[in-house]
This record gives sequence, structure tokens and C-alpha cells, in this order.
Amino acid sequence: MVTWNNLDTLKSYDKLKELKGHVDIKEAMAGENGAKRVAEYTVPMASGLNFNYAAKQVDDEVLNVLAELAEEQQLVDKFEELYNGAVINTGEQRLVLHHLARRQLGKDVIVDGVNKRDFYVEQQKKAADFANKVHAGEITNEAGEKFTTVVQIGIGGSDLGPRALYIALENWAKTNGFDKMEAKFISNVDPDDAAAVLNSIDVSRSLFIVVSKSGTTLETLTNEAFVKDALVKAGLNPSKHMLTATSETSPLAKSDDYLEAFFMDDFIGGRYSSVSAVGGVILSLAFGPEIFARILNGMADEDKLATNKNIKENPDLLDALIGVYERNVQGYPETAVLPYSQALSRFPAHLQQCDMESNGKSVNRFGERVNYVTGPIIFGEPGTNGQHSFYQLLHQGTDIVPLQFVGFKDSQIGTDVVIEGSTSQKKLCANVAAQIVAFACGKDDENKNKNFEGGRPSSIIIGDQLTPESLGSLLAHFENKIMFQGFVWNVNSFDQEGVQLGKLLAKRVLAHDTDGALKAYSDLFEI
Amino acid sequence: MVTWNNLDTLKSYDKLKELKGHVDIKEAMAGENGAKRVAEYTVPMASGLNFNYAAKQVDDEVLNVLAELAEEQQLVDKFEELYNGAVINTGEQRLVLHHLARRQLGKDVIVDGVNKRDFYVEQQKKAADFANKVHAGEITNEAGEKFTTVVQIGIGGSDLGPRALYIALENWAKTNGFDKMEAKFISNVDPDDAAAVLNSIDVSRSLFIVVSKSGTTLETLTNEAFVKDALVKAGLNPSKHMLTATSETSPLAKSDDYLEAFFMDDFIGGRYSSVSAVGGVILSLAFGPEIFARILNGMADEDKLATNKNIKENPDLLDALIGVYERNVQGYPETAVLPYSQALSRFPAHLQQCDMESNGKSVNRFGERVNYVTGPIIFGEPGTNGQHSFYQLLHQGTDIVPLQFVGFKDSQIGTDVVIEGSTSQKKLCANVAAQIVAFACGKDDENKNKNFEGGRPSSIIIGDQLTPESLGSLLAHFENKIMFQGFVWNVNSFDQEGVQLGKLLAKRVLAHDTDGALKAYSDLFEI
Repeated sequence: MVTWNNLDTLKSYDKLKELKGHVDIKEAMAGENGAKRVAEYTVPMASGLNFNYAAKQVDDEVLNVLAELAEEQQLVDKFEELYNGAVINTGEQRLVLHHLARRQLGKDVIVDGVNKRDFYVEQQKKAADFANKVHAGEITNEAGEKFTTVVQIGIGGSDLGPRALYIALENWAKTNGFDKMEAKFISNVDPDDAAAVLNSIDVSRSLFIVVSKSGTTLETLTNEAFVKDALVKAGLNPSKHMLTATSETSPLAKSDDYLEAFFMDDFIGGRYSSVSAVGGVILSLAFGPEIFARILNGMADEDKLATNKNIKENPDLLDALIGVYERNVQGYPETAVLPYSQALSRFPAHLQQCDMESNGKSVNRFGERVNYVTGPIIFGEPGTNGQHSFYQLLHQGTDIVPLQFVGFKDSQIGTDVVIEGSTSQKKLCANVAAQIVAFACGKDDENKNKNFEGGRPSSIIIGDQLTPESLGSLLAHFENKIMFQGFVWNVNSFDQEGVQLGKLLAKRVLAHDTDGALKAYSDLFEI
Repeated sequence: MVTWNNLDTLKSYDKLKELKGHVDIKEAMAGENGAKRVAEYTVPMASGLNFNYAAKQVDDEVLNVLAELAEEQQLVDKFEELYNGAVINTGEQRLVLHHLARRQLGKDVIVDGVNKRDFYVEQQKKAADFANKVHAGEITNEAGEKFTTVVQIGIGGSDLGPRALYIALENWAKTNGFDKMEAKFISNVDPDDAAAVLNSIDVSRSLFIVVSKSGTTLETLTNEAFVKDALVKAGLNPSKHMLTATSETSPLAKSDDYLEAFFMDDFIGGRYSSVSAVGGVILSLAFGPEIFARILNGMADEDKLATNKNIKENPDLLDALIGVYERNVQGYPETAVLPYSQALSRFPAHLQQCDMESNGKSVNRFGERVNYVTGPIIFGEPGTNGQHSFYQLLHQGTDIVPLQFVGFKDSQIGTDVVIEGSTSQKKLCANVAAQIVAFACGKDDENKNKNFEGGRPSSIIIGDQLTPESLGSLLAHFENKIMFQGFVWNVNSFDQEGVQLGKLLAKRVLAHDTDGALKAYSDLFEI
């Protein structure tokens, strides 16, 4: 049985606060000791990845207290409760079952007579069968031509995750012969977003997936209507081109407007739904169902590691705990995610949602205000691009920003050139290795303008190549990290009440039911 | 004559600190008073834009002290020194002349016998002539076919600004018949970046611009070699496809490898160089020289407003001062830039570089450590997408993040649909209006999980449509804001010594000249 306590009620937290500024990372990473840390402070992840935290501001003493905190706050027990079907989402009184959709962890969970694992697997199979038929030319457009393009119409969790995963594997798929269909995404209610996507494709050869769990998301319904309008104008029957991924109880579920409907439920939140029909349909169509299954396998393998109570063998938990130390003890308000991989260009945007929407809360799971800071600001861009941009502040600014690097030994496409004795891929890897040390160790210079103080903490996840498996493990790592941090802070990481007020006020603007400042702003836009 | 003083030596700064928490924005924005603020707290910008700061935590008292600070720190005088050719970049002992490239402000500046304004104009004309000849089919590939695509090879300032501007106008240009050529960008040393771009174009019909001021940027030279390799493999002569934008003294300048060379100089920093050959060549080729000139006109018009000593009539200065109040007095470490325009999807990434690379400094312009915080963390994504993502934290997180919204009454493409009585564009505008009020005013709820505290400050820049002119004005606004903040903090906003150490260490890794942690990390990547 677990108990849910605020962070500041824990004895281990009091101990941890005593360790503020305990490790001088500049000193710790110098010379042979630094090399020793790199060798020792590393944890294997799934799919051949490794989480290396040598350049984080921790040592065995800090790690021991973090282990106490993990135990006292029952972090792994809480994870176990979650994947076995407890009502973890207290705000909405819901189960949290995205791990179950990866098929492996936990007991069977029965809700209203339905075995949820079977339900998720069934939907994945339905998506697989549909995709196979499209690829085989058994499902075609009305002219009997094969569909070549699939367009996701969704926003937030129905957009960022699937988009980030598609971009991450697009070139890998082309290189390895898994590029079954081209994928595009329409998300913004800005009409130029939909118009530009429609201008770039052959609509007669395109499938469109309307993705909204509730079936009431205004942006998505608007973009659906936008697309239908374009299909009709092109002389096409929308119901032969439109699919939906929605909940069984939504208005979209029973409509005749769709060629096929794929189902999700309330127990997988939007930002964790890449594994459900939200991501499964488009990824199965784009790359083939077997590639989608490989992503899920990578996630399931990482999930298993997250059940280990030894923090030194649980990379997701350890990363979470170090983040809490940085946020609550060291006092750093941001974390930057910096993948040295162009394929991960939208991965930071997905993590930004996943993290900030999950843990950007001021009340605990019982609705009481907490007296400590919770989720940090997450931002990031791929290296080496960031090096020529905002890294200036990261190196020499007045604030310290903890960093999370990601890097791979091999590229995805494999085309490369040797310049000045090294390939581009080697240069990419050399840069990320150099950055970790530059941030940690700095460089003294009498010219203070050229002085680097160092002492700036970072970790890195290193892998051989970004593949479906390693991508899945990487995603599950961050999802689990965020979950564990939510447990530490005792917040409900699985609702998002903070998005409601804006929606409500926007509806009032459109209904002209406004006064005061809201009317004044609406007038400026002539609404 | 101006004097350069640290912020904490100013009397007005002492006064400003007394005003911490002075305005309760939730109270100020309520009812009729809120509507009055929206009407009064607005400043016209150039190109029909307006900067509205009603929902910022200021009132006349705060504004008066900010005006004193502007006067005491001689902010407009310093701008005048800058555009008239003083050595403002003290670290590198350089002039700072990007405003001059917009043609209008200030005296003629002569360096080594060269009138710099004439030099910039001459290079713009050279780019215009070249682009016109390409568009007219007077300059073609060796087979006599017209070039259809232009690819920029550059990183940092040679990439982010031109890319953000191209994306901002791509759909506008298509809609209005100015889509002369398609533009693509290669930046990352990750070989998959170049390979993916090359796979997506017809190289025989493509021009490539190698952009590097020094002519020594490793990533860019590597990608140049990558592209040349691909051209040769395709049986093409690289020198008939490659252009360069570089300084006259760089190794690229005198090479026969290029069909044409366009020049910049050391007085326009990378992140301010969209107006120089760095952005001028690709934008003139993509949209035509007259469109590039219209961007410059929009910038020049905004620059003129920035010379006004009355802060209530100088939107760039006022925005800068409010930002300083938020950063140094209110203690907020980040600012989010949130454009309600899909076309501005990469604008936040450009501003992130512009701001964080300029003011992410810990020493003043004399190389002395400052005792106050300087440049904030900048991040952002387009609305309404952000609303379904990280806005949860912005509304209900434990930290307050100041916000800068941007919105337009009209879309660029003009295709739209009416759903539930309103167009998509109206919905987009209704959302941004609603967000400002939701952030400022919040909403009390007995269920603390659904409670919005409000008190979260934002400003908005509103325009009719994103056009070349308004885009130029928007860009100049933020550039000038950053410049004024650099003056307030007494830092040198125009160098970037913080990027050097990483470069140096990466070279050592590639030369296998490493030990300790750096060797250990290099070994992990098998370098």
C-alpha cells in the first residue's frame, strides 16, 4: 500500500537540502577523477542506449540520499500501482494505462468488463490490418488508385508525439525501405496551416485521420471541415478519404463520415498517446505496422527497467531524481534537451509538452497548494545548431541551465564525407563530447570575456543509432522520468485543467459574450 | 557623449527595485479599468503593427521610473552612437552596423576609406541583379535549364534568421505570385541533414549558397564538401551551382569554386545578418529582390521609431524596459514568445538565438563581472499549438513566465471556412485575446485543481497581416529590444566568446589530443 505525501514532509528531502552545492562539478570532472566518473556514473537503458550522468552535480553521498528519497516516497511502488490499474489520475478519477498499451507490464486491468490490454492490442491490430490493406492496394481511392499520403489532423498530444516520431524515423525508413507512405500534419487553427499542407499534396491520393479523443476539439473539428471542404471542391467524397481516431463514446465514433474509426479511451492521456491509435494509425500507415510494433517493443523494454528499485540500475528513476535535486535543491528553473541528431528536431517540442503539461502544477493530487517548485521549463533544439545559437547563454550567462544531451554513434542515412580527416558523424559526436566537458570544466582566462566558469551540469544518453527500438526506449525513458518526478512532487501528472480557462474565454469571445479587457482585446482583432 | 555604467550604479534602478510587485495585474485588468488599460497602454509600431502592454505589470508610476532609467542609462543616445559608427562591440573592437544595411539611419560611416552604407547597398544590388538574371533564365545550369531551387548552407546566424524569414513569407509569396524559387536549408553537421535535403531536390536545377563570414566554420565547410560530392556524383560541375556569401578577406572570397561571391563584413554580427548578403541572396532568389527590399523597408521604419526618447512612443525601448523590470526586479528568468501565426513557426528559434547569444553574458563591456542577472531564457512555439501543450505550466505552474504574443487579423493564404459561425482566423484571434485575459485575470474556483491564480503578465504585438513590411518591422523590433536591454545591463551584445571553448575542445577530440573526462567521453563515441 502506498501513501501519497508532499515532498516537503519527507525526511530524505530535509537531508537532500543539506547537500545544496555539495559537488563542485568543475573539480569532480577534472583529470583522472573525471574519467573515472564517466566510466562509473553510467546506467544501461534498453535498446543499447546508456544514460551517463558523470557531469551531473552528484556523488555517492547525494545518490544515497536520492535513493532514500525514492524509497521514502515509494516511487517504484507507485509506478507499480499505476500500471496495475489504480486510479492515479485523481483529478479526473481515471486509470493511467499507457504502459499497458506497450503490452508487457502488469496485471490484466478490467474496466466495465473490458480487458484493457486486449482492447489496446485489438486497436493496434485493427490499425495494422488497415495499413496492410492500404499498402497492398486493397483499400484505394474511388478511382482505384493507391493512397500515397496520410495526413494527421490533431493538436497537442494528437500532433506533437506522432509528428516527432514520424520525423525521427522518416530518413531511417527511406534508407531501409520502410517508407510506405508520406505523412503530413495539420494542427494549428491558423487556416494557413491547413491550406499549406493541402497545397503540398495530391488530395485524391491522401487519407486524413481526424484525431480527437473527445471528438469536440475545436481546432481539430475546424481543420476537419477545412479538409472536407477541399475534398468536395476537388470532386471527391470525403467519407472515402477520412479516418478517425477517437474514443468509443465520442460523436465521431458512430459517424458515417469515416472510412474507418480507430478507438482509444480515457486512460491514455493525449501526451502519452503515441502508443495508442493516436500515433498507431499514422505510424503504421507511414512505415508499416511492424515498425510501429518495434517502437512499442523499445518502450516496453525501457518500462521494465523502470520497475527496478535500485536507482543505479533504473535510468528513468535516476534521471528523475537528479532533476528533482537540480530543481528543488540547486534551484534551477529550466532544463534544456539537446539531441545531437537532426532526426530528433521535434523531439524537444514533444518533451516540452509531455513534461510541462504533466508537472506544471501548483497543487498536489489532493488539490492542496504545494510549498515547493514543481515542473521546470523545458526547451531545446538539435546540436550542433544550438551551439551556434543560444549556447552562448548556457556557457556564459548569469543563470545555470541543466542540460540533457542525446547522441548516436552512427547516422541514419549513412551517406557521409571525410573532411579534415573525419566524417560528419564523427564531428557531430566530437562536438557533443566536447560540450559536456566545456560546460562542466570551463576554462580560466585572464580576459574575463573569454573566461568560462564551468560548473554547468549535463547528462547524456548515448546510443548506436536512432532506430524504431531506440526511439521507443528514448521516449519511454522521458515519459517515465516525468512520471517519477510527478510522484516526487505529489502532483497529478495526468490531467491538464490549466488549458480549460483559455478555451472557455475563447468561446465567449466568439459568442460576443464579453466585457472589460476581453472585449477590448477582441475589438482590437475586430471579432 | 555617453557613459557606460552598470545597471546597479543607477539611481533609477534603486527606485525601480522599490516597485517590486507594485502592480497587481489581476486587479488592474478587471472590469472597466482593464478595458481602459487596453486602450491606453498601446504604442504604434511601423507597418501598421501595435505593441499593447496593458497586461504587463506596469502602471504610470513604474513607467515613469522606467523612463528615468532610459534617460539615466542614455539608452537612445547609445543607439545613436551605435548607428553612427562607434565601436560598440568592445570585445572585438568592432562597429555595429546592421541598422545601416537598412539604408536609412545615421551618418555615413567610412572604414578604411569605404563608405559602409554604399558597400551594403552595393551588395544588395549585386544580389538583386544576380537573382533577376536567374529568374529571367539568363543564368542557368550547364544544360541551359532554369534553376528552380536555392539551398542555403550555413549555421547559426547564417541559418536561423534567413530560414525564419523564408518560412514566414513562403505561403504569402505563393498566394501573391512571388514564389520565384523554392528554398531549402542545410545547417547541422549531422550528415543526415544534408543527405535528406539533397534527396528532396533536383540538384541539377539547384543553386547552393555557402554562407560563412570567416569562411572557416567547420559545419558549413563540411556540408559544402558533402554537397560538392553529391554534385560531382551527379555528373555536375560544382562551380556552376555554388555561390558564397562571405567576407572579402575569407578564403572563400577569392576561390574559383563559386559562380558568384557576395560580401559581408565584420560589422554585422551573424544573428543580425538577415539584412546582409547572408539573408539577402537567398531571399532575393526565393521571392525576388523587391520583396527583400520591402522587408528592409519594414525594418528601417521600425528603426526610426527606436530613436524616439519618449518611451511611450518608442515600442522597442518600452518593450526592453518592461523586460528588464520583469527580469531584474520581478525576478522572472524566462520569456516565452508565442506567435499566433503558423508562418512564424521558426521565428521564436531565431529570437532565441538573437536574444540569448546577445545578452547571455556575465561580464560587462569592460570585462568585469556584473552583480545582477542579464539575458533571460527565450522559448516559444506557435499558438494555438502551445495552448494544447506547455501552456498548462504557464497557467498553473509554480513559476511565472512573462509572455510576448504576436497576432494578425488576417491570414496569409486567405482560404478559410466558417464553422460554428466563425472563420478559423477569427478563432485564432479569439484564442489569443482569451489567453491574455486568462493569464492576467485567472479564475477563482473552490476546486483548487481548477483554480487559476492569474497575475501572469503578457504583451501582444497586433498587425493586419504578416507581409514583408510587417515581418521586417517585427524583426527590427526584437533586434532593437535586445540591443536596448544590452545597454541597460551594460553588456556587449555583439560578441559571442561563449561559443569558442566547445569548438576548441571538439577540434582536440578529432585530433585525439585529449585526456581525462574528454577522452572518456570520446571513447564512448569511439572517436
